[in-house]
Amino acid sequence: MPESSSLALPHIGKLHAYTPGLQPGESGWVKLNTNECPYPPSPRVAEALRREIGPDGANLRLYPNPKSDRLRVAVARHHGLKPENVCIGNGSDDLLNLLVRCFASSAAVTGFTLPSYSLYPVLVGIQDGAVETIDFDRSMQLPMAKIAASKASIFFLTSPNAPTGVGFSRAEIGRVLDGFKGLLVVDEAYAPFAAENVADLVAQRERLVVVRTLSKAHALAGMRIGYALASPVIIDLLDRVRDSYNVSRLAQVAGEAALDDSGYYQGVIARICATRDRFIGGLKGTRGWFTYSSQANFIFTEPKDRRGISGPGVARAAWEFLYGRRVLVRHFPSSPLTAPFLRISVGTDDEMLVLNQELDAWQKAAQVA
Amino acid sequence: MPESSSLALPHIGKLHAYTPGLQPGESGWVKLNTNECPYPPSPRVAEALRREIGPDGANLRLYPNPKSDRLRVAVARHHGLKPENVCIGNGSDDLLNLLVRCFASSAAVTGFTLPSYSLYPVLVGIQDGAVETIDFDRSMQLPMAKIAASKASIFFLTSPNAPTGVGFSRAEIGRVLDGFKGLLVVDEAYAPFAAENVADLVAQRERLVVVRTLSKAHALAGMRIGYALASPVIIDLLDRVRDSYNVSRLAQVAGEAALDDSGYYQGVIARICATRDRFIGGLKGTRGWFTYSSQANFIFTEPKDRRGISGPGVARAAWEFLYGRRVLVRHFPSSPLTAPFLRISVGTDDEMLVLNQELDAWQKAAQVA
Repeated sequence: MPESSSLALPHIGKLHAYTPGLQPGESGWVKLNTNECPYPPSPRVAEALRREIGPDGANLRLYPNPKSDRLRVAVARHHGLKPENVCIGNGSDDLLNLLVRCFASSAAVTGFTLPSYSLYPVLVGIQDGAVETIDFDRSMQLPMAKIAASKASIFFLTSPNAPTGVGFSRAEIGRVLDGFKGLLVVDEAYAPFAAENVADLVAQRERLVVVRTLSKAHALAGMRIGYALASPVIIDLLDRVRDSYNVSRLAQVAGEAALDDSGYYQGVIARICATRDRFIGGLKGTRGWFTYSSQANFIFTEPKDRRGISGPGVARAAWEFLYGRRVLVRHFPSSPLTAPFLRISVGTDDEMLVLNQELDAWQKAAQVA
Repeated sequence: MPESSSLALPHIGKLHAYTPGLQPGESGWVKLNTNECPYPPSPRVAEALRREIGPDGANLRLYPNPKSDRLRVAVARHHGLKPENVCIGNGSDDLLNLLVRCFASSAAVTGFTLPSYSLYPVLVGIQDGAVETIDFDRSMQLPMAKIAASKASIFFLTSPNAPTGVGFSRAEIGRVLDGFKGLLVVDEAYAPFAAENVADLVAQRERLVVVRTLSKAHALAGMRIGYALASPVIIDLLDRVRDSYNVSRLAQVAGEAALDDSGYYQGVIARICATRDRFIGGLKGTRGWFTYSSQANFIFTEPKDRRGISGPGVARAAWEFLYGRRVLVRHFPSSPLTAPFLRISVGTDDEMLVLNQELDAWQKAAQVA
């Protein structure tokens, strides 16, 4: 082992990086693997960006506003909160990381459910922190009592859950909050597609943090904009740990422009939900595949091959067939609860038509390996 | 103390956030306080951004390339290195933070000189790490033997130094590397303005990391683009700790476009260095102020009031006078070596003329408080 890497902290040498979904460099793919929005962002975003860039990019020579002040105001207005309830991040992953740095250690346990967003254990690993996991069962109903009884200092709850898309009610999350003694982080990356969310509750609940992103419903994954909503005390802690220029000038104006056009995004979200529900209907009805009700912009379904058999091998075979036809979806083989399933981001109706045709073709051809 | 903040790790509650230089929201300031470039970026940057945004921002709905692969290639080419020697960050502060997370702890000591970039102790504080500082004396010559003998696991060396602007030679840094047993991070934020740099040495020196930014010479502070150069072993560690989408699509194309136009930037750098050296000549000659030779885009000078007296109070008074005239410079009162000085970013010739006139006015009016 070379000398330089032996200088690294012992736990760092053992880390595995988070595995993001494939981001193919070339076009020609039907890309339904990373829950991006199939529609472009509000036209106001491109306008705001062009304005900030100007004829020669002269503004870009200046540092951004360190606190993203105007974007904090826009986010607060969007949720009926105060700017002191808002911290802006370089994507919501930035904020998840800041939360881990403030609240997680080898002594202060981090909790999360299995399955949920697979970044949490990566972030806790970087922090050399202790982990407590709480398993879902196949019903994917929220294990409220178990979370409420958890001794974790900080607990990440993805709502709607990933990768299942199952949504949780305000009442359910309220019950967890009533019992849980630590800090509850509700990761609402997909909440714009859900019936309910708890964003406004941060005004009353000291131990609640809500994390949001503009990467999904707002079609700005390429810009890296996320935010945390919490009590001013928590926001102050995040600001101490946050990089002082974590959000670029362009990300700040893009975020403001997007939040300023909620009418546009209501239309986008309605289209995606309509496509989603129609497609789920087909999976369950026509194909007879077990599929969770989704309150997100993706679908978690258990493929059956032509003999009517499902399982990890069948899901893997379907993934590979689709990959060969340049249709990208996602397979999570590491847990028995997720391995028989595919996660499919909701695309345009045209993209879902292609997917449907390829699934037909696969079912006709499918052999379990 | 509210319950939620008492859940934070004990050291987090005691942190003070890094204090960035003032970023006034309104125009009308002569802004010489955060070492931004007074000239716009290469016109190719604005072109590349407009191309990526397109008519409707449709590309922005897609995640960026997780590794910033094309930008790694461009950086490697720029320095005659391989892409495996390069990691891209959301500003160079992102990379400094990743280095701290990989190499610093309460047991693994972090070293740096006083004075140098005041972010280092903030980053180590967030990590709850141990610190060893090595003092410069007023000569600001590199304390090579002391650094070489340091027991630190990781040592941050700013070269040219901040806030003095004093540059160090390849031979001096080579001598430090020969003796020092830890990882030496040479923070070359200002190296494009210097006579020498050590970027190419990472190909031979396993325990050397060079950190660069496009915020200064490349006039892209608003975009947040930095990079680390190191052996592939070190780059691999940084990649494990790095956020998987840390650099936006727009930052990636802006960085590529800037590095593609070195001719433009050679002109910008030559102008800034000419203005700098002419202004230093005036400070030393006409005013008789002690001023360090600068190899950066800023000037560190010790103001004298009209009675010929210098000192922390005089520097503070000069700062306040300039602030009242809407000329922003920077004062670092916390160390006796820096408190009698002002740090002045090199602006356009017109901006430096305004500064000169205001310094004349101050000297005529100046009373020590």
